[in-house]
Amino acid sequence: MTVQKNKELESLRLKIRALTSEIMAKVQERTQLARQVGEVKGRLGIDVKDEKVEQEIRLMVARQAEESGMGKEFALRLLSVLLQESELVQEKSRPLKARQTHISIFRKAKQMEAAGSRIIHLEVGEPDFPAPAQVGNALAESFAKRQYHYTDTRGIPALLDAIAKKTGVIEDRVIVTPGGRFAVFSAIAALVRPGEEIITIEPAWPAYKECADFVGARTKVLRTTMEKGWTPDVSELAAMVTENTKMIAINYPNNPTGKVINEKTMDGIVSLARDHALYLLSDEVYSNYSFAPFESALSYSYDRSVVVSSFSKTYAMTGFRVGYAVASVDTIRQMAKVQAAGITSVAEPVQRAALVALGQDASGNVDLMKKRLTFLSSRLKEMSLRFIEPDGAMYIYPQLPAGEDVELVEKLLEKGVAIAPGSGFGDSYRQFVRISACRPEEEMAEGLNMMEKVLRREN
Amino acid sequence: MTVQKNKELESLRLKIRALTSEIMAKVQERTQLARQVGEVKGRLGIDVKDEKVEQEIRLMVARQAEESGMGKEFALRLLSVLLQESELVQEKSRPLKARQTHISIFRKAKQMEAAGSRIIHLEVGEPDFPAPAQVGNALAESFAKRQYHYTDTRGIPALLDAIAKKTGVIEDRVIVTPGGRFAVFSAIAALVRPGEEIITIEPAWPAYKECADFVGARTKVLRTTMEKGWTPDVSELAAMVTENTKMIAINYPNNPTGKVINEKTMDGIVSLARDHALYLLSDEVYSNYSFAPFESALSYSYDRSVVVSSFSKTYAMTGFRVGYAVASVDTIRQMAKVQAAGITSVAEPVQRAALVALGQDASGNVDLMKKRLTFLSSRLKEMSLRFIEPDGAMYIYPQLPAGEDVELVEKLLEKGVAIAPGSGFGDSYRQFVRISACRPEEEMAEGLNMMEKVLRREN
Repeated sequence: MTVQKNKELESLRLKIRALTSEIMAKVQERTQLARQVGEVKGRLGIDVKDEKVEQEIRLMVARQAEESGMGKEFALRLLSVLLQESELVQEKSRPLKARQTHISIFRKAKQMEAAGSRIIHLEVGEPDFPAPAQVGNALAESFAKRQYHYTDTRGIPALLDAIAKKTGVIEDRVIVTPGGRFAVFSAIAALVRPGEEIITIEPAWPAYKECADFVGARTKVLRTTMEKGWTPDVSELAAMVTENTKMIAINYPNNPTGKVINEKTMDGIVSLARDHALYLLSDEVYSNYSFAPFESALSYSYDRSVVVSSFSKTYAMTGFRVGYAVASVDTIRQMAKVQAAGITSVAEPVQRAALVALGQDASGNVDLMKKRLTFLSSRLKEMSLRFIEPDGAMYIYPQLPAGEDVELVEKLLEKGVAIAPGSGFGDSYRQFVRISACRPEEEMAEGLNMMEKVLRREN
Repeated sequence: MTVQKNKELESLRLKIRALTSEIMAKVQERTQLARQVGEVKGRLGIDVKDEKVEQEIRLMVARQAEESGMGKEFALRLLSVLLQESELVQEKSRPLKARQTHISIFRKAKQMEAAGSRIIHLEVGEPDFPAPAQVGNALAESFAKRQYHYTDTRGIPALLDAIAKKTGVIEDRVIVTPGGRFAVFSAIAALVRPGEEIITIEPAWPAYKECADFVGARTKVLRTTMEKGWTPDVSELAAMVTENTKMIAINYPNNPTGKVINEKTMDGIVSLARDHALYLLSDEVYSNYSFAPFESALSYSYDRSVVVSSFSKTYAMTGFRVGYAVASVDTIRQMAKVQAAGITSVAEPVQRAALVALGQDASGNVDLMKKRLTFLSSRLKEMSLRFIEPDGAMYIYPQLPAGEDVELVEKLLEKGVAIAPGSGFGDSYRQFVRISACRPEEEMAEGLNMMEKVLRREN
């Protein structure tokens, strides 16, 4: 009996081996065709990635999978592996330029400082004002009380509770993370699978794409323009959504433009997400620095929204690395799994500090930031630079009269002034730079004077 | 001209579509065969996973890829997707039991405490002694000096330098991480790709498998036994290595057994890794708590080793979430990319605290731990439990005379004593439990008295 069954198993296995070999042969044939496509495209100067063609093939495979009773999700995952290889094969001959970002400039600036240079930091989103004094007391107290143990993955109950109260949700919908960045990271890692897509709206903080890259997800980009006031076109956004799209990432008040979208645009984005059951990652770390009416995505009660916030900007606590996310109970549970795997929990003294920070009045910081942005704005106007007046956040994103961002950024850095290249927020923004309002006016003035000089020599 | 070229492109695209459809049809056929295999296996009571069969098919595909000029890596990645689906299809009918681990018990215990119960915590690896007083001063000082900013991804230079000096490497080979866990996480995420394999040696801290699961890598397990003194058999280990294996994860002094392997075994493991160019992840967070001669993997100067350490256990700083890794410059660079994507950097006040901790004498903690383990050992012997005397770490891993771990663990928890189920460290250890020596002797005595009572009623 067992012998016969094993024969059955053996025969099935032989068939599987043969089929596997056939599949591989066909895949190899496919790869060769993709290479030929790459050559033709190269001659024609056409982009490797063609969304329309990809979308057609995706629809075809989805239909075939449904008709044949094959798992659609599995079929699309497999297709993604094939498409990625095609893209890779097609791109192999095209050299990639390393991207300069505010982070890479910050790193260079730090190295120059370590070597003895004086640097004016207008490249980084790190307010220079002090964290609330009570935060220091909380640190000391947490040590005295021996509050430095593993905590619940999502955070200490008191902090979860305080955030829940502040945001008007139940405590199970909150997770405390090591910075807003890890909230973005764990949301994307938990909710988007390899080969699936997220849509970002550029110019954008590069973290969304970096996290998507990390999990092997694909990023599609909706580009906004200064001419249209950095407003995303919702119908364009709608046209980009495919069956493979899982998430839209938005960030208002925006880094780097300072834009806050109006209610109608936000309504449109949330409706779109709702219609297609997409996750809506709303990065609201600058919500406190909003000088135009700003409505959190939370107000829509959309169950697939993930709202990210942070203590970094509001309370000048960047180096404490503590932020949080608010989402559905189920989403938070999935994000907590990523957090448990990656870091166990956020450092307890840091959580205690965040809890105390939450009770502090940060309006002084907001007033100061607004004053600095006003100063920055009037000085940039004097320099005849074009930009959209920011509605919030901590930056201005002016267009350069000529030349490329990285050229200017590097020249300025040599002269001790660090600003961020616009292309760090999207490939198509090489004519822009981002200037932070995180330093005192005198310092910003000094930095801008230097920028003016360098720009004049340019023209 | 362009029209003709576009025709060429169009014809290539049609061919690709047709081929894609054929591939999907064959994959569907393959999945159906896999389902049949699953049914036969179910009837025969055979395990779904068959390493030998998988290995044969992997060799076949690798050979085919080489002969046809197809990328071998791509072919194996594609095969992994197929194999994972086969496994899934075969396993679908078998219900999975949720695993209880020291963490899930810790969580339950915490909930009971929150509800007013008194719990004796012998389940968690968290020493009860205080962190050095100087660490508290460092926290306060970092706040006073406004040292709470973004730092270099790898850490503040002073801490990198101190760790480099302590471990005898150059500073570029060090990264500071939010706990040893994130060092494990980023090493696996940076070095192992979806579908590739890591080998763990059980019983093992579940983090290695959790991180591998997270990146979609496969975990193969070498099981060690109490009968053989928890010594891994290097020839067995060698037999498990395939072309798809990328990493071996080891952990000595071991959690949960307290084992330290001898030099010969360690030599064998390093040689094996070297021969197959495997990464060797050596988790040495308990190296300070070693009562037998212990040699760090660093002493082998093997360039694919990643040594993980932590401030948690040595300095009783679990809740500070700070650890580090030492590896080759290239590996550290790759791990830093994961860290930059996930968390930016470790909280600066925490790094300042770690820097000061590094200068403190922790020998008092080691002596205390040894004394407690001796007490625990003699008490367990009185209870006639079998176990291997620990060479280090903070635990004893005794075998139960009868019954299953989770049963005992749950009964004990009802009575206010938390211990860790053995199966949390590997499915085949349901007859074991892990008892931590992180509480004062009186408390441990109380917990063990209760355990003795519960066990007696069992028999």
